[in-house]
Amino acid sequence: MTFLDDFATMSSFGATAAGGVDREAATADDGRTRRFLADWFDRHGLTTIVDAIGNMYGSVEFVPGAPYVLVGSHLDSQPTAGKYDGAYGVLAAAHAVHHLKEHVERGSLTPQFNLAAVNWFNEEGSRFSPSLMGSGVFIGKFDADEILKVTDRAGISVRDALSDIGFHGIDPAPEAVSYAEIHIEQGPILEKEGLRIGIVTANWAARKYSITVHGEQSHTGATHMALRHDALVGASRIVLAARELTRNFDDGLLLASVGQFDVEPNSPIVVPSKVTMAVDLRSSDPDVLEQAHEMLLAAIDEVTEVNVSIDTSSLRPSTSYQLEGVELAEEAAKDLGLSHRRMLTMAGHDSVNLKDIVPTVMLFVPSVDGISHSEKELTRDEDLLAGVKMLTETVARMVRGDIGAAHPAEFANASHTSS
Amino acid sequence: MTFLDDFATMSSFGATAAGGVDREAATADDGRTRRFLADWFDRHGLTTIVDAIGNMYGSVEFVPGAPYVLVGSHLDSQPTAGKYDGAYGVLAAAHAVHHLKEHVERGSLTPQFNLAAVNWFNEEGSRFSPSLMGSGVFIGKFDADEILKVTDRAGISVRDALSDIGFHGIDPAPEAVSYAEIHIEQGPILEKEGLRIGIVTANWAARKYSITVHGEQSHTGATHMALRHDALVGASRIVLAARELTRNFDDGLLLASVGQFDVEPNSPIVVPSKVTMAVDLRSSDPDVLEQAHEMLLAAIDEVTEVNVSIDTSSLRPSTSYQLEGVELAEEAAKDLGLSHRRMLTMAGHDSVNLKDIVPTVMLFVPSVDGISHSEKELTRDEDLLAGVKMLTETVARMVRGDIGAAHPAEFANASHTSS
Repeated sequence: MTFLDDFATMSSFGATAAGGVDREAATADDGRTRRFLADWFDRHGLTTIVDAIGNMYGSVEFVPGAPYVLVGSHLDSQPTAGKYDGAYGVLAAAHAVHHLKEHVERGSLTPQFNLAAVNWFNEEGSRFSPSLMGSGVFIGKFDADEILKVTDRAGISVRDALSDIGFHGIDPAPEAVSYAEIHIEQGPILEKEGLRIGIVTANWAARKYSITVHGEQSHTGATHMALRHDALVGASRIVLAARELTRNFDDGLLLASVGQFDVEPNSPIVVPSKVTMAVDLRSSDPDVLEQAHEMLLAAIDEVTEVNVSIDTSSLRPSTSYQLEGVELAEEAAKDLGLSHRRMLTMAGHDSVNLKDIVPTVMLFVPSVDGISHSEKELTRDEDLLAGVKMLTETVARMVRGDIGAAHPAEFANASHTSS
Repeated sequence: MTFLDDFATMSSFGATAAGGVDREAATADDGRTRRFLADWFDRHGLTTIVDAIGNMYGSVEFVPGAPYVLVGSHLDSQPTAGKYDGAYGVLAAAHAVHHLKEHVERGSLTPQFNLAAVNWFNEEGSRFSPSLMGSGVFIGKFDADEILKVTDRAGISVRDALSDIGFHGIDPAPEAVSYAEIHIEQGPILEKEGLRIGIVTANWAARKYSITVHGEQSHTGATHMALRHDALVGASRIVLAARELTRNFDDGLLLASVGQFDVEPNSPIVVPSKVTMAVDLRSSDPDVLEQAHEMLLAAIDEVTEVNVSIDTSSLRPSTSYQLEGVELAEEAAKDLGLSHRRMLTMAGHDSVNLKDIVPTVMLFVPSVDGISHSEKELTRDEDLLAGVKMLTETVARMVRGDIGAAHPAEFANASHTSS
C-alpha cells in the first residue's frame, strides 16, 4: 500500500528507539520530514508553497483565482512522541489532494475551488510557545513578525530556526474557502465503541496557567524546618491540588495536569528557591471549567510558606465546528459505509483556529487504548486507511462546493497572507 | 584590616548581583579564585602543592620529614551561594598558617610538625556528585582514578574540568597529623545565644536517597484521569511525605528535604513520564533517623499510579570529633576570652572526613539568622575576625604538638597520596 509505505518512510525521520519520533518544530529532523514532504508534493505534481511562518502547502490550481480548500495537520512533534500525532493527518491530506487532482484531471470531479495540502508550523508548542503557531498566524490571530521573534529555551528565534532548516518562506499563503483535518483521536472512545470515524462538533474548553512559586534558598542540612520557605513543597501542593480538583466532578468531566515543572537552583543539598510550572485544566462543560478555575485559585490561596504568582492565565473557550461541515462528513461516512459518531475534541488542533474563519471539518480515527503524546501511541493500519478514504471523500465534496460556496461574504475575510 | 580586604577581593570572583557567589567546582570562576589563593600563598612564602584530585595546599616545612598539621576548607560553592560558606575557612586557614610561620621564624612558637593551609576540591557536590570529593580521596575513602572519571550533567569529567582550569596536579598530598577547620555555623544557635565560637563535637547523621518515579507519558488534553500514570503527581506526594515526616518528631530533631527534582519530558501539554529526585534526611539522633527512614519507605509504598524505585540510599552516620581536640579548642577560646559552646554540625564538612584518620578540630562562627546556601548568607566582620584569631590560636597548639603527638600509631595510617 502506497500510503502505509509513505507513512513508514516519513516515520523514519527523528525516529526514537521505542518506536516514536522526536522532531520538535524547526529542528533538523523536522526539516528532514519537511523535505520529504516537499519532494512528495513535487513527485505528485503539486506545487510547494512556503509562507513566512513556515507553513507548507502542496497546491493545485483548478479554477484560476478561486480560493483554496485546505486539508492538513502538522509534522512537528513533542520531544518524545508517537509517530501518528499530526504527521498522519498531513500525509493523509497529501494523498487525498493527489487523488482528487487525478479525479479532476480525469473529469470525474468538477471543482469549484482550488486545493492544497498543508503542514502547519509548530502545532505542539513544546519548543516555541504558544502552540498552534502557524495556523494562528494564518488566521490573523497572531502577528507573524511578533511570532518570528519568539525564542526557544536556548535563545534561538523562530525566524533563525526556520532559516536554519530552509523553511522561512517568502510565498503568500493561499486564500482559504474551507478546511478539513484528520487526526488520531488521542482518547479511547472510538476504539471502545468499535467505530472507525469520529466527526468533531466542538472543542473542549481549556484554561492554561503559568505559575511561579517563590521560596527562599537555604541549606537542606542546616536550616530548621520552621525557618524554611521551600518552593518545591509549595509547588507540590499545587500539583496535588490540581489533581484533587478532578474529584469534584463526574468522571471524565474535568482534566487537570501539570506538564512543565522547573526547580531552581536544583541542587541536592539546597532547599529550592523557585519553581515555575504550567497548569492545564480542560472540560467539555464551560461551567465546570469556571468552577474548577475558582477552586484552583482558592487552593493556591491556601498554600503557605511560599509566595505564589499566577504569571499568565488564558482561556480557550469551547466553540463549535460549523454544522454544515459535520453533516457533510456524516453523509460522506454513510456513503462509504464507515461507522461513525459525533464527538468533542479534548486536545487543541489547527482546525480549532481554522474554524474561526472558514467552514471546517475535523475527523478522528481510533487511538489504541487512547494513548497519545507517547511513543506507545498506535492507530491500526486498517483505521489509517479508512481515515484516508474518509478524508478524500469529504474533501471531494468540499472541492465541488457542497460547503463554503453558499457564503461568499465569509470568504472575503478568509484571505490572509502570513507576512 | 588585611583579612577583610583579602576576603573582599576573593569574594569578587564569581560574584553575583545579589551579593553572593557562583563558583561551582572546577568552573572558570573556581579557577580564578584558586589562582588568587596560589598567588596569595606565593606572596606570603608558602609553597603551593596541587594533588591529582585538585586539592591545593599552601605549605611550610618547619621539621624536615615530619607530618603536617592541615588547616582548611573549600573554595567551591553552590550555583547561587553565599560568599562565606567554605571560602571563609580557606582564607582564615591561609592567614593562620602565615601568622604562625612568622611566629616560628621569630622563635615564639616551637613546632613539632609542619603546617599547610588546604583548599579541598568539590566539597559542595552540586556540579560533580558525590560531595566531599577532595577530602574523600585524601583519606582514602574514594579512589582518585574513579573520581576523576565522574562527569557533570554536560558530560565533562572531573579530570577534564580540573585540567581546563590548570588544577589537575601531580604533587603527592602531604601527610597529615591533625586537622582544623573553621566554617560559618549555617544555623541560628550561636547568634541566638550571643556566642562567638562553636566547637563541634559530632556531626548529625544523614540519609540521602536518589529516587526515580516512573509514570507513563500521555497528552494532558486528551487522557482521562483514570488512565493516567503521572510521574509528577507521584513525585509530589513523595515531596510532601518527606515534609510530613518531620511532624512526627520534636521540633528540630529531623530535617527532611528534596533539593534536586527533574521532570521528563517537561512539556506544558504532556503528562510527565519520569521524575528523578534527591531526598535528604538528617537528625542529631541516629534512632530518629532510622525511624524516619522506615516511615519514608512506608510512605513511598503508599504512592500509587506510578512505580517508584529507590536507586541509591546512603547513610552518613553520626560520629564524634576527638575529645582531645574539643578540649584543646575550649582552652584556646578561654585563653582568648572568646565566648563559646559545644555543638553539633547538621551540615557535612571536609572535617567529617578528616576526623576519620586524624585528630580534628571543627570550629563555627555565627551566621546571621542561620541563613546558608543563599546569597543572603552573612557573618559579621567582628565574628569573622574573632574566628581567625581562634583558628590561629588553636592551630598554634596543634603545631606545637598538644594533640597528635601522643598517638604515633594513628599517624602511620594518615599518609595518603591522591594518585
